[in-house]
Amino acid sequence: MEILDGKQVAENIKKDFEERLNKVKIRPNIAVLGIKGDGASDIYTRKIKKNCEKYRIGFKLILSENVKDFKKNFKEIKDDESITGIMFQQPLDGNVLNLINEIPAQKDIEGIGINNMGKLFLGNEDAQIPCTSKAVIKTIEYYGINLEGKKVAIVGRSSIVGKPLIPQLLKKDATITVCHSKTKNLVKELQTADVVIMAIGKANFLKKEMIKKDAILIDVGINFLDGKIVGDIDYEDVKDYVKAITPVPGGIGIVTNALLIDNIIRSVE
Amino acid sequence: MEILDGKQVAENIKKDFEERLNKVKIRPNIAVLGIKGDGASDIYTRKIKKNCEKYRIGFKLILSENVKDFKKNFKEIKDDESITGIMFQQPLDGNVLNLINEIPAQKDIEGIGINNMGKLFLGNEDAQIPCTSKAVIKTIEYYGINLEGKKVAIVGRSSIVGKPLIPQLLKKDATITVCHSKTKNLVKELQTADVVIMAIGKANFLKKEMIKKDAILIDVGINFLDGKIVGDIDYEDVKDYVKAITPVPGGIGIVTNALLIDNIIRSVE
Repeated sequence: MEILDGKQVAENIKKDFEERLNKVKIRPNIAVLGIKGDGASDIYTRKIKKNCEKYRIGFKLILSENVKDFKKNFKEIKDDESITGIMFQQPLDGNVLNLINEIPAQKDIEGIGINNMGKLFLGNEDAQIPCTSKAVIKTIEYYGINLEGKKVAIVGRSSIVGKPLIPQLLKKDATITVCHSKTKNLVKELQTADVVIMAIGKANFLKKEMIKKDAILIDVGINFLDGKIVGDIDYEDVKDYVKAITPVPGGIGIVTNALLIDNIIRSVE
Repeated sequence: MEILDGKQVAENIKKDFEERLNKVKIRPNIAVLGIKGDGASDIYTRKIKKNCEKYRIGFKLILSENVKDFKKNFKEIKDDESITGIMFQQPLDGNVLNLINEIPAQKDIEGIGINNMGKLFLGNEDAQIPCTSKAVIKTIEYYGINLEGKKVAIVGRSSIVGKPLIPQLLKKDATITVCHSKTKNLVKELQTADVVIMAIGKANFLKKEMIKKDAILIDVGINFLDGKIVGDIDYEDVKDYVKAITPVPGGIGIVTNALLIDNIIRSVE
């Protein structure tokens, strides 16, 4: 069994960051907008801040008191020419979610707006791609996994992982099956898949009897269970049964963090 | 075996066209741009013209001598406020294909530009949707076929059929498998599918031994064989083995034509 080590993939992505940053005309400078009181996403935001500081990327966190305040702050930031990238702290109130599409495409560093999603689906090379989905692809590429004609099952159909993975996997000539909470015969689909990508947010959901022997497993889940971080895959249960697997922590999450910085740099290149 | 009759679906779509057209402030007025000498697409264009005339929708065909001429004509049409919808006659030279994304989203009546595709993938209700893909959905809806949890296999991954079908089928809670020319085990995927949508452009490709009994088949193919129009499905071979099937001609094609008019009206509503 091979462990697909996110740290190695991330290091490989980061290795030319300094060189790229030395070449850009404007130093990237990002703003993260959120609403006060959402503790869970604080951890992620702190991680982004730390990474930005490491690369001397401007970072500003703007926490609003309420939706009205958020809209006002967003309007100011959107028109601020010194800001090169904008992202929203998730999860966001439905009332402000549609503002994502008002982020100018170039500044949409998470690649979650209409423009970037349209570009991604039409195969446009300059699309900013949602980091988590791209982290799956970068991991597959780093480890030289050939997907041509292989069956890849994606479990989960979110706008930031499942859906954006579809065009990226089709480009690699994979046969794709998208499963989700309403899927009947999930096990039947997974047992015929060469690669399974789990992105449903259910701790230790996937067991070895659900997959075929020597499958390659990619775990996008980050769940808290008994004070520990675990993925959507029961790692201990499957580890001796599979060909390769991404661990949690130490897998897709680390690569995702590196790719956000990559997107931030791309936005000024 | 039930025949999913495109004519009935199209009539149902067209039944409120006159009423809707009486309500709009500006009468729709479209321009079709192409390059001279492409005989195959002339048939489709003539059909559109006829349909536009029927509903007193303005129609203008602008055939250019070459790519340079096309670009010049496009620039004029794009800025012409009297034109409410623009489409390109396909297949188009690669040199002009990217101009599709310069069609203002509102005037992109075929729904094939970045903006509409992004909206479609993110579930935005005001997306203009590529007509052929929407014709598949409208046919499924008209005949009350419930896709929740069902396995739907899409064969073909084009930007106008296979790809835009994905979010539309996910919205109906189907489990989706996307197959294409590089797929290994195509038959294995098709034999476990409750619904098979064929969109590869290969005459009579699908035979009954490739599918499961009582599957529902949707045929998007339009192929010319021995002077006759046939689909991607060998109709005679499968007809007594399936639960339902769309004929060719008389199936998805007719619905597609109605939906183009629907999109043209939508663009001014």
